[in-house]
Amino acid sequence: MKRFPNSVGCPVELSLNLLGGKWKVVVLARLKEKPLRYAELRQRIPGLSDKVLTERLADLQRQGWIERGRDGTGTGQFRYRLTAKGQTLRPVLQQLYEWGAEQAVKMNVTIRPKESKEHTVGPARRYL
Amino acid sequence: MKRFPNSVGCPVELSLNLLGGKWKVVVLARLKEKPLRYAELRQRIPGLSDKVLTERLADLQRQGWIERGRDGTGTGQFRYRLTAKGQTLRPVLQQLYEWGAEQAVKMNVTIRPKESKEHTVGPARRYL
Repeated sequence: MKRFPNSVGCPVELSLNLLGGKWKVVVLARLKEKPLRYAELRQRIPGLSDKVLTERLADLQRQGWIERGRDGTGTGQFRYRLTAKGQTLRPVLQQLYEWGAEQAVKMNVTIRPKESKEHTVGPARRYL
Repeated sequence: MKRFPNSVGCPVELSLNLLGGKWKVVVLARLKEKPLRYAELRQRIPGLSDKVLTERLADLQRQGWIERGRDGTGTGQFRYRLTAKGQTLRPVLQQLYEWGAEQAVKMNVTIRPKESKEHTVGPARRYL
């Protein structure tokens, strides 16, 4: 696991050292919404390869921001979710979300729908 | 200048694309406090080389988050400061600051004092 320096120039530098890169923050932002299975995360972050997603999830677990466990629905499925420590990131993730949403409007950038493939075949089609 | 995609998976991804990397955010966080001369920025971010600081400042100006101008004190000095567009980042930077400060306490990480060299020679010494 990456070692962090024991002194930094400012708190923001420490935050960025700890969060470390775009994709870990994007994964945390997705898990802030709700616990997700690997396949659900994969689908929501199509820009990311399986290799990189797997690595980032392992990093985030080692750092203690997320954990993987049965979802308690009795289906035996595993989901990733924020730990109590990871929950402390909510205000940061919320601000990054709100600012990004404002910029998307100003810059005319489209936010792709969260559910892509799973929902392209709707119920009507599914039962043909 | 880097081109950004015209669609993203989520607003947080757009925020991180726009902010792009640790040092640009650290520079923005410093300028959020107050406008600073190049030498003052350099001193406050000792982990950063002149080359990288110069590049990041140029990027931030091109993106329109910061601007460089005379400081209005009549000294003719130039300072970098957030633009109106850059000011929209205040809540994001504030949350990154607060979270980093909390983590520093929990992790026993020292935040180095802002003013290092300038203040090692105090007034008493200076006038000997």
